[in-house]
Amino acid sequence: MRIIGIDPGLGRVGYGIIEIQNEKKIFLDCGVIETNKNKGEGDRLYEIFNDLNTLIDQWKPDIAAVEKFFFYRSSTTISVVQARGVIMMVFAFKSIKVSEYAPSQVKLTIAGSGKASKKEVIEAVMYNLNLTRAPKPDDSADALAIALTKLNEEGFN
Amino acid sequence: MRIIGIDPGLGRVGYGIIEIQNEKKIFLDCGVIETNKNKGEGDRLYEIFNDLNTLIDQWKPDIAAVEKFFFYRSSTTISVVQARGVIMMVFAFKSIKVSEYAPSQVKLTIAGSGKASKKEVIEAVMYNLNLTRAPKPDDSADALAIALTKLNEEGFN
Repeated sequence: MRIIGIDPGLGRVGYGIIEIQNEKKIFLDCGVIETNKNKGEGDRLYEIFNDLNTLIDQWKPDIAAVEKFFFYRSSTTISVVQARGVIMMVFAFKSIKVSEYAPSQVKLTIAGSGKASKKEVIEAVMYNLNLTRAPKPDDSADALAIALTKLNEEGFN
Repeated sequence: MRIIGIDPGLGRVGYGIIEIQNEKKIFLDCGVIETNKNKGEGDRLYEIFNDLNTLIDQWKPDIAAVEKFFFYRSSTTISVVQARGVIMMVFAFKSIKVSEYAPSQVKLTIAGSGKASKKEVIEAVMYNLNLTRAPKPDDSADALAIALTKLNEEGFN
């Protein structure tokens, strides 16, 4: 089973891909889809649509996990939520089932506390995937953490 | 010149299509894209993607006008903003330029006050387009009002 985790954004969409082989979690890839900040909103959303489609065709994940937003969080912006709409639509288009997790749930599952720091989440991701270096950039570490949350729920911890 | 106005939503996307012929505004069509409420969020966003594409192929609008959201408005929800992301993406995909208007700007332009009632907006739409009946459903009247706001800006008032 292969999973893709997604950390949504308009400027940067973090992604992380993990495979279960013989009950073990294997790190495959991580990175960000970056959109052209000189372009308009619609064009940048279309870049996300295209690049995410390409990424799915390349890695063929079986399932997906995407960060969930809440309205009252001051860090959640209209542009990020719009990007998430395009991302959710692409997974439906590709018939890939999506699980959704709030940031605090990801932190709790991965690092043992809903208020874990960015550094603690990165260390937990490295520990979980036997990585000797921190995944770069940070958005991709968050995406791997989201994917690991789903795998934990499925009993791979 | 033909314009499509859009009132975004996850359950219902209102649309209205107006054409300028000999400097006059001609009503062409209005209605709603309705999504299946028994389906998941991603599938409903994909319905919007498909149906809006079909609508654009059918009516071939030159430009678009879409309602703009603000975060502090309690009526704006995550699901509506996500739907708007898909809508903006589709217009970029179709290379159709989008103008954006806040609800209060639409009301001010069409009905003379940023706090005009729904009924006043509907009456203003009917007056502007020489309609003898109110456009149904209400979401489509809002979409026509958004399109009329852009046409007003272009000097067709």
